[in-house]
Amino acid sequence: MQSKIRTALLGTGLMGFPMARNLLAAGFDTAVWNRSADKAAPLAEFGARVAASAAEAVADADVVISMLSDGRAVLDLAGQGGLRAALKQGAIWVDMSSTKPDEARALADGLQQIGVEVLDAPVSGGTRGAEQASLAIMVGGAPQILDRARAVLQALGRPVHVGPTGAGQLAKLANQTIVAITIGAVAEATLLLEAGGADATAVRDALKGGFADSAILQQHGARMSARDFTPGGPSRLQVKDLDNALAEAEGLNLVLPSARAIRDRFQRYVAELDGADRDHSGLFEELLDLNGRVATDTP
Amino acid sequence: MQSKIRTALLGTGLMGFPMARNLLAAGFDTAVWNRSADKAAPLAEFGARVAASAAEAVADADVVISMLSDGRAVLDLAGQGGLRAALKQGAIWVDMSSTKPDEARALADGLQQIGVEVLDAPVSGGTRGAEQASLAIMVGGAPQILDRARAVLQALGRPVHVGPTGAGQLAKLANQTIVAITIGAVAEATLLLEAGGADATAVRDALKGGFADSAILQQHGARMSARDFTPGGPSRLQVKDLDNALAEAEGLNLVLPSARAIRDRFQRYVAELDGADRDHSGLFEELLDLNGRVATDTP
Repeated sequence: MQSKIRTALLGTGLMGFPMARNLLAAGFDTAVWNRSADKAAPLAEFGARVAASAAEAVADADVVISMLSDGRAVLDLAGQGGLRAALKQGAIWVDMSSTKPDEARALADGLQQIGVEVLDAPVSGGTRGAEQASLAIMVGGAPQILDRARAVLQALGRPVHVGPTGAGQLAKLANQTIVAITIGAVAEATLLLEAGGADATAVRDALKGGFADSAILQQHGARMSARDFTPGGPSRLQVKDLDNALAEAEGLNLVLPSARAIRDRFQRYVAELDGADRDHSGLFEELLDLNGRVATDTP
Repeated sequence: MQSKIRTALLGTGLMGFPMARNLLAAGFDTAVWNRSADKAAPLAEFGARVAASAAEAVADADVVISMLSDGRAVLDLAGQGGLRAALKQGAIWVDMSSTKPDEARALADGLQQIGVEVLDAPVSGGTRGAEQASLAIMVGGAPQILDRARAVLQALGRPVHVGPTGAGQLAKLANQTIVAITIGAVAEATLLLEAGGADATAVRDALKGGFADSAILQQHGARMSARDFTPGGPSRLQVKDLDNALAEAEGLNLVLPSARAIRDRFQRYVAELDGADRDHSGLFEELLDLNGRVATDTP
C-alpha cells in the first residue's frame, strides 16, 4: 500500500543518505538526488532511482523531502525554474533541513503559488537517529497536510505537529537553545565538583533519573570529565543555532538572557579558543579558560 | 539479619517521616525523635520506639540518621552535651539534611573526636522519593563507612559514594545548580515557542527522549504552559541553594557565570515579584516580567 506513494529525497548527505535507505526499506518508491552525484549513486543498490537532476527526481513524487545544509540552499533549489516546472500538482514538499522560521515561511509561500503543499519538519537525533529511523520530527504546517505525509515521515522517525508553517523550525531553535544552556549548566556543575574534590562521574551516576538528569548531563558531562571534545555537534553550529534563535526572538521583541549569555560564550570559544570544530560540550574548555585553568588540568 | 542493626532517625518532618517508615518496613529496629514530638508520635504504630529526647533516641543506635532543616540545626543538635554522651562508640551518623560542605566537615570533625563516624548523604527525589524509598543519595565520607551503613541507606533509596566528607553536599549543590539553570533554559524556550505561535506542549512531546529532554522540560515546562506555580520546590529555597553553591565556588576561587546570573534572577523573582513561595518553575514569571508581559497572558 505504501508503495503507491512516490517519494523523492533531495540531499543525500550524512542525514539524507540513511533517511533514503529507511524510505526504501519501508517500501516507498524513492528517487534520490544530490548536488555531488557520487553521494547519491550508492543508493541504487538499495532500490533508489538515482536522478541526474533535482527536476528529474521530483517529477513523479507525491512527497518531496529536502535535507540540505541550510535554508538558503533549500530556497535556491526550490526557486529553480526547471524544478518548479517538474513538481507535481498537489505534491507535498517536506523540508527537513534546519532553517530559520522565516525561510520556512518563504519556502511555503513560493511553493504554494504553484500548487505544492509545504511542511517544515526539522529533526533532532543526529545521524544515529537518521540511521535508526528514530528521529524526533517537529512539524510545522497544516495538520491535514501532515496527515497525508505521515506514513512517509513515520518511516524516518516520530513526527509531531507543533504549529503552523515555521513552528517546526522554531521548535528546533528552542531545542538547540535548551541544549546550549544545559551544556553550560553541566559545565559549571562539573567544574564545581572537580574543584571541590568530588567524583563527577559518580555524581552523574547518583543523579540518574532525578531532576538534574538529562542526556546532556550523562553524555556531555562524561566528555567534560574525559576532556574529550571530538564532535558530535561542532561548537560553530551551536553559535549559528543560537544566533538564529536570538534573531527570531528579536523579531518577536523578546529578550532571552540565558540564551544571549551562552551564545556570547560559545562565540568566544569559537573565535578565541579554537573551539569551532570541537564538540559543543567543549564549552567546558571556555569555562576553564574563564577560570584561569587549563583544559589538560584533568581531575 | 538487618534487625541486628539498630537505627535512630532524628527529624521526622515531610522527608524524615516516610524515611522512618521505610526503615521500619525493612526490618530495622528504629528509634525516632522530633523537636515537635507530635510529628514523631504516629510512627509508634509502625513499630518505632518514639524517644522523649534525641539523647534517648541515639543511645543504642548503630546508625543515626539526621534529616533536619539545615546545617545549623544539625550542628546545634550534634553539639549537645547530653546527646554526645549518649552516642555509642563506633556508631555512624549519617546526615541526610541539605547543608553546606563546610558544615558537613564541621559535623564530621566534631563527632569523630568522640569516636563516631560521619557520612554526609543529602538526597534528591523529594517527598515522593522518600515515600517510595527511591531517593538518590549522594554520599561523602570514607567508602568503608558507607559499606557499613549501606544496608540502612538502601532501605531509603540508592546510595552512591561521590567523594570524601563534604562531597555529598557539594553534589547536592551541583544538582541544584543544574536544576536552576535548566529551569531558566526551559523558560526561555517556552516563551520563544509561545510568542512565535508554536504549541509548546506539542514541542515537549516531540522532544521526548532527545538531547533537550529532561524532567525539568516535561514537568516544569508543563507548569509554565499552565501558569501553575504551586510548589513543588519553592523559589526561596532555590535562592538559598544557589547562594550556597556560589559561596562554595567563591571559596574555591571559581566563577560560575550561569549560576550567578540565574541566582540573581531567582532573587529578583523572590524579592520583587512575590515569588518566594511559588514553585521554582515560576522563574517563567520573572522572564515574562523582564519582557513586559504579564503572567496571565496565557498562550
